[in-house]
Amino acid sequence: MSNDGAWIHDVATGPAAKVVEKHREPQELIFYSGWFCPYVQRTWIALEEKGIPYQYKEVNPYKKEKHFLEINPKGLVPAIEYKGKALYESLILCEFLEDAYPSYGPNLLTTDPYAKAYIRIWLDFISKTIVPTNLRLTMAQDPAKQKEYLQEYNEALRTLMGKAKGPYFLGEEFSLVDVAIAPWILRDYVLSENRGYSREGVSPEWKAYCELLEKRPSVANTFSEKKYLQPIYNRYLSDTAQSAGAQALRAGKAIP
Amino acid sequence: MSNDGAWIHDVATGPAAKVVEKHREPQELIFYSGWFCPYVQRTWIALEEKGIPYQYKEVNPYKKEKHFLEINPKGLVPAIEYKGKALYESLILCEFLEDAYPSYGPNLLTTDPYAKAYIRIWLDFISKTIVPTNLRLTMAQDPAKQKEYLQEYNEALRTLMGKAKGPYFLGEEFSLVDVAIAPWILRDYVLSENRGYSREGVSPEWKAYCELLEKRPSVANTFSEKKYLQPIYNRYLSDTAQSAGAQALRAGKAIP
Repeated sequence: MSNDGAWIHDVATGPAAKVVEKHREPQELIFYSGWFCPYVQRTWIALEEKGIPYQYKEVNPYKKEKHFLEINPKGLVPAIEYKGKALYESLILCEFLEDAYPSYGPNLLTTDPYAKAYIRIWLDFISKTIVPTNLRLTMAQDPAKQKEYLQEYNEALRTLMGKAKGPYFLGEEFSLVDVAIAPWILRDYVLSENRGYSREGVSPEWKAYCELLEKRPSVANTFSEKKYLQPIYNRYLSDTAQSAGAQALRAGKAIP
Repeated sequence: MSNDGAWIHDVATGPAAKVVEKHREPQELIFYSGWFCPYVQRTWIALEEKGIPYQYKEVNPYKKEKHFLEINPKGLVPAIEYKGKALYESLILCEFLEDAYPSYGPNLLTTDPYAKAYIRIWLDFISKTIVPTNLRLTMAQDPAKQKEYLQEYNEALRTLMGKAKGPYFLGEEFSLVDVAIAPWILRDYVLSENRGYSREGVSPEWKAYCELLEKRPSVANTFSEKKYLQPIYNRYLSDTAQSAGAQALRAGKAIP
């Protein structure tokens, strides 16, 4: 998620602030974060799940460090610096962590070729269908469109749940599919309060899955206080956000 | 690519027909193909590059086999059947081939974690920017829009070339980035003849890269005769195509 040019609280708060405190020391892997961003949180959850040593650096949207922009010219977060080179894109970073830190467990992609491909198919569904529909619903102003997108969103979540073995997507094992959707579950109160969404309205299975995921330590501990998210979501809810995702959606293009 | 509900020649022709002939025998891996589809060709190129034993099955859009629909309900191609289970999505299938057939080389994703992530970043750029812009340009009817999209397309290709080491994207090694873009290079005469595109108009490096890729055996030998593609492209050029990709683009959504 890129800076949308408006005021954003400058540091993580609540449980996330404690995790940040533990990751101040220099490490081979530097994690460039924006505390508020759901894409960032995916990579952060994976880092915490695997117990990989990392140095947390908050990227201030107003004062991006010269060094950060040198290695990552677009300035997008999440990004990592690994042996002096930058990588970005939330799920690509999660896969990178599996490839670069094979001895840090658990393996969130599994080691079975078929299961890996199956996980990637559902990551693709989350990226291409669930996340854009969530954003479209959040930004919609016309009540008829809101109703249409809410139905689409509920349907997409039911499709995902139709494949979930429970309690996690793959069964007993927590996987990248759970990582990829969890940040949008933590933030779904925005849709409940403003767009008529409810977890029960999707299905009882979805409600149980949400409650399980939001309690998982790696998920809960990488989330900040909701009050600081409010000004950001107000811009999406009034369709005045200028983030790269918001602009792409208005132009009928894929979220970058 | 899904069937767009209109007439499609029912078998591969030209060089591709010879490759099909060599892959009639039953194998552990069944490759469900549509000879005309650029997404299918990605997976086909990877199969040929790696020398993996596979059984080729053409999916007739009018008469999809009951068994195929049972294992792959959406009926999309490319798909594979591996030990009785289906997988789909062109680039996910290419990654699966690396995971499931590690001893069949070359490794199109490399074995270095950083390089793998770097390849995935550029695959993502091809999927989110290059391919949708190509389709948008092909389907545009308004001359002003055609001009705008042609500039966007050229710019996207220059961005890719700006990262290419030459002669292939990664240097001497042929990789998944080359696989992912090659089918659109073979079909770019459609834009040259109808939308004012030219390889030289992008850059001399792009022209040289295109000429190298289209001559590579795995690429050239999985392509059929152009005359059979003509009726399919006529529907895109007149904006009457009903494929899933064409419909998504009109609705301002990501290509599925």
